[in-house]
Parts: sequence; structure tokens; C-alpha cells
Amino acid sequence: MASAAPKVTSTVLELNEALPLDCGLSLDGVRIAYETYGTLNEARDNAVLICHATTGDQYLASKHPITGKPGWWDRMVGPGKGIDTDRFYVICPNVLGSCMGTTGPSSPAPDGEPWAMRFPVITIRDMVRAHLALLDALEVGQLHAVVGGSMGGMQALSLAANWPERTQRVMAIAATGEMPAQNIAFQEVGRQAVMADPDWQGGAYYGTGKAPDSGLSVARMAAHITYLSEATLSEKFGRRLQDREAKSFGFDADFQVESYLRYQGESFTGRFDANSYLYITRAMSYFDLAEECGGRLADAFKDCKARFCLVSFDTDWLYPTVESRKLAHALNAAGAPVSFVELAAPFGHDSFLLEVPELDRVIAGFLSQ
Amino acid sequence: MASAAPKVTSTVLELNEALPLDCGLSLDGVRIAYETYGTLNEARDNAVLICHATTGDQYLASKHPITGKPGWWDRMVGPGKGIDTDRFYVICPNVLGSCMGTTGPSSPAPDGEPWAMRFPVITIRDMVRAHLALLDALEVGQLHAVVGGSMGGMQALSLAANWPERTQRVMAIAATGEMPAQNIAFQEVGRQAVMADPDWQGGAYYGTGKAPDSGLSVARMAAHITYLSEATLSEKFGRRLQDREAKSFGFDADFQVESYLRYQGESFTGRFDANSYLYITRAMSYFDLAEECGGRLADAFKDCKARFCLVSFDTDWLYPTVESRKLAHALNAAGAPVSFVELAAPFGHDSFLLEVPELDRVIAGFLSQ
Repeated sequence: MASAAPKVTSTVLELNEALPLDCGLSLDGVRIAYETYGTLNEARDNAVLICHATTGDQYLASKHPITGKPGWWDRMVGPGKGIDTDRFYVICPNVLGSCMGTTGPSSPAPDGEPWAMRFPVITIRDMVRAHLALLDALEVGQLHAVVGGSMGGMQALSLAANWPERTQRVMAIAATGEMPAQNIAFQEVGRQAVMADPDWQGGAYYGTGKAPDSGLSVARMAAHITYLSEATLSEKFGRRLQDREAKSFGFDADFQVESYLRYQGESFTGRFDANSYLYITRAMSYFDLAEECGGRLADAFKDCKARFCLVSFDTDWLYPTVESRKLAHALNAAGAPVSFVELAAPFGHDSFLLEVPELDRVIAGFLSQ
Repeated sequence: MASAAPKVTSTVLELNEALPLDCGLSLDGVRIAYETYGTLNEARDNAVLICHATTGDQYLASKHPITGKPGWWDRMVGPGKGIDTDRFYVICPNVLGSCMGTTGPSSPAPDGEPWAMRFPVITIRDMVRAHLALLDALEVGQLHAVVGGSMGGMQALSLAANWPERTQRVMAIAATGEMPAQNIAFQEVGRQAVMADPDWQGGAYYGTGKAPDSGLSVARMAAHITYLSEATLSEKFGRRLQDREAKSFGFDADFQVESYLRYQGESFTGRFDANSYLYITRAMSYFDLAEECGGRLADAFKDCKARFCLVSFDTDWLYPTVESRKLAHALNAAGAPVSFVELAAPFGHDSFLLEVPELDRVIAGFLSQ
């Protein structure tokens, strides 16, 4: 019988050993904030690691402490849901470089001052290294599955490619094996928007009473457009005006879509650290699984015994189906068992977060295989 | 016999009469900077008006005075070219609200100070009103054709819809009859980037020694991505690094696409006024031909006797083929003669400016009909 709400624990783990990084440096005293849902069974083989996207966090299916909103995958994770917490022990860590309790640029460096831009540039694989340290601490040797959408999917793929023995199943939704040029370009615009804001102060804005909210808001606005389909924007807003009968012949947010975007930008600055945005988008633009594994994507998966499930969405123009198809071909070439489905969903890239019941069924089915 | 280079004249016309605007105000002493190529014939019926795009100008096929580069449509306009200046008298005005000699926010207001944000908000139709005042001064009653790509195409359509007797032919390339929500959204991001720059100073930056170059650069970077196809970015840049063997693990422009975008942003600020960018993108987001003409797009063309030619490009995701198709349907419903072609071209929205020989043939053929 499904219980009413998942049992959730919020914890911060401090690593005893230094975390090695792709840049060649290592980080001491890394803290990892994470939530768990459900119970680890005696065989310790029912753990599902869920990796969050760019600006996500560990508040997977519990109320967000800043926004007060439900967790970002509340619809998917819980008793009897697509990822059933009556059955699985679900772990969701805040990624390295982020700002919700895991070590990142806003955390204190050894000198006690915030790292700011002295924080080392990290990679998706470094995020996964932190996840594995957490799994070690939780005494989870092999995952039942690693699951993620968007940047979360990249972490899932990197884990499978680099530590193939650590998971039985890999689910990458709306992801890619290497960041395409157009996405690198959009990410660069976002970073330039932040860094152009004088309140950024070279990243050393902590404790100054100022932060690059204007720049971060512009970055978020630009990124937000890429998360949605053109059809969603047209249907949701079209050319409808916001709280007015006629155009103002001015520069207010006359159109609903303008007002919506401004709200998205402004509200984001209340919950996210601008330097974390720089570091995490940098990690994404650096992501290239083939390069990590000798130059050929198929080689990335040659030692992997896991089953794979790839999902794309037909209206996602940021990580379009062709990216998942390239991954499917590489997995086929490596002889790995892979299922790949393109789902019809109107919401663009954000479909993985929204009401797409078919996705719930695909995930539940894959986790039961 | 085709001559080697088009005969070009650069002129500024000052209007004697006030220019009425859609906002209800009118502007005195409007100046219109324009170039002409070729010779107006005795019948005064060989004039072709070419309308430029958002950040274009009158330097159609002559060296740009700031950048030193060839005119933006040099490949299309000249003796024996797609728009043959041995045959046609080509007129290209800088649009109202711009900054290359035509009255705009950087021009002096009646009090002698720059208009800045006191400049009235203008529309695409207001730009066309200025064009018509220029045609009146040149004693061109009816055009052989009005031709434009992107925002230029919108001006061509607005001219045909509102002043149907003024042209025999209308050519709208990579255009739309109303700005879609996604484009409104991208334009809003650009404006917010400019207005977030403290050097914008509420628009009153003229003469202060500062200008919102950082914000305008970010706006240009974001817009520039939308002008190109994903395939162009992938083929031209992919994930190639810029002048280095390996990633820097820093925030320099490691990737060629980052370096390219930064250059596009920075170089734009040297030739364009930030307030003009605000006003012109505002005019575009306001553009809705159906609304101008009673609510139904087909009604916009009901009195028009001109022939129409619409061209879209298969890789243009900013003004995709569906937008031209909607226009073609409306023209069909209005009983107007229209030809519509989607051209295969790899460059995205910018295809109308680039090497697409089929476009030259379509234009030359349409102008000869």
C-alpha cells in the first residue's frame, strides 16, 4: 500500500578525503547536501541516484526551502509514482559547484573567505565523483539505476562511462553525449550577461550587499526561452497583452510573454548564486563524453554492463532527438542493451519536468526490468 | 552591357511636414538618410525600394563608413545582379528610429538635446510612412517593387497592406505577418540586457563618455545565435577550441563559437546605438499586420493589386516557413497573386544575406514578371 508522502531525509555529508578534479586540482572538505526518500534494503541494491539539471537541487520531492514550492520532480518521485519510493531508496544530491549546501563558489575556501572565482573549474565528471563519494558513504556499492534529465542525464552517462561497475541501469532523458555548439553559444551569452554586470565585481560580491542580479536575470531569461518550445510560448502567451487593453507605446512589459520572462529572471536571482551559474554552465559546455574516453563515443561504453534507456522529446530544440539518437548508435556499437524512445510532448526541453504521463510509464517500466 | 559598379548617391532628406505616428504623436523635421543606385527612368516606374533589417542601414551596396565592409546586400544589388541597377532605380533608406543618419533616439529633439528615451515609440508602419515621404520627395508615385528580408519584409508587407496603390510588386523574404511569441521573448531579453547596464543611464548616455556597450553586446550575442542555424554553428565551429590545444579550465573564450560570439557583440557596439536597438526591436514586437487592418490577415491585402513573392528558408527557425505560409494563405484568401517558395539553404535566418544563388534567381525572375 502506498503511503501518503515519501519519507525524506535532508543531510549534509562532509568528505574526509580530498576530491580529485579533472583540472588536476583537488578539493578538501567537500560538503554534499542531499536528500533521500524511501529505505535502503538489506541487500543495499535498491538505490536510485537522481541527478538534477543545471539549476536544480536536492529538493526532489520535498518543499523547496526558499521558494516554498513542491520539489522539482514531485510528480515523478513518491509512493506509487514513476519512481516508487515504497520500492526504491532514492538519493538526490545537490551537484558540486551549486549553491544549496554542496560546496561551490559561494562556500568558504581554506582561508575562510568565499571561494568566488578562485573555485576550480569543474566538469560533469567531477560532479559524478562527488556523487560516488556520497554513495560510498551511504555504503551503496552498485546502484539499481542512475536517472537524470538534461544536465542530470549527462551525469548519468558520465557515471556509466567512467565507473561502469557502479550502476545496473542508466536513464538519460533529454540529454546529449557532448554539448552542441548552439548550446555552448547560449551558455556563453548567459555568462557574459552575468560578468557584464558591475555588481558581479569579478565574482567577489559576497558580503558586499550587492550581487549581479540584473545580469543573472538576463541570463535566466535567455536560457528560459530555450527550455520551452515555440508552440508552448505561442499557446501559453501568443501576442496577448498583460493587464492592459492596448499597447502602451513604451518599454513596459506589454506582452504576457515579456512579463512572464521578467518574472522568471527576477525570481531566479532569489534562489541561485550567480557564480554557481557560471561554473555549472562551464561544466556543461566542457562536457564531451567521447573526449573523456579516448575520442570515440562508442568506446565510452565498451566496459559497461548496464542497461540503458534514452528518452527525447519531439519539441525539444535544445537537446533534440538527434542527440539521443547519436548516443543510441554509440551504445549499439558498444553492444550495450539500450532502448530509445522519442516521446511526443508539447513543452520543449522542459517536458522532462512537466506532465508527460508517458514518461512516468517509461521510467517505471525501465526500473522494473 | 553591365557597368563595373553601381552608381550610388548618398543623401539626407529633411521632411518639411510633420510625420504622423501610430502612437498618436507626430515628429517634426524628420531626416531620412538614404542611398540610391541606378537611374530613375523618364516614366518614373523603375524604382525598387529595398527595406533593411533590424540592424541594417542604407549602405546596401557601398562601403560601410564605419566598418569599411562592403554593403550588406552587395552580392544582390548591382549591374547585372539579382536586383539589376542597370535596369532599376534602387532606393534604400535608413529606417526611422535607427542611427545612421535617419532621425532616431540619438537625434536632437526640438530642445537641441538628444531625444534618448523621450523619442516616441514607433512601429513598422511608421518606418513605412517615412519611406513614403521619401518616395514623394523623389517623385516616385508607384514602385516597381518593394523588397525586404526579415524586418525589411515586414516593411514591404506593411506598405502593401496600408498603401496598396504605391507598389506593383511586393517581395518579403524570411518575414512574418506578426511577430511570434518566441521572437518577442528574445527581443525582450535583448532590451533587458541593454537596460540592465548601468551605463545605459535611463537612455541618457549621450555625451557622458559612457554607453551601455556591455549590455548591447550581450543583446547582440543572443540575437546573433537566433540568426544562424544549429547546423551552421556546428559545421562552422562545432566544439573546436580557439587558439589553444586544450581547455583552459577557466572562463576565457575556450571555444571558437564563444570567441566568435564575443566578437560579434563587441564589434556591433561600434556601429550601432543602444537606444535605436530598443526602439527598433520594440517596433518589431509590436508588428501585427492583421491587427493593423481590422483583425483578419486576409483583410490586410483586400485592396492590394500588387503581385506578391514570399520566400522562406528551410533552416530558418526564427522566421520559419510556417510564417510565410500563413501569409501565402492570407494572400490567397484575399485573391492576390502570390508565389511562395521555401528555399533550401544551410545558414538559418541569415540566409537572405548570404550566398544562396537560388534567391538571386527568384528575385530577378520576380522583378521581371
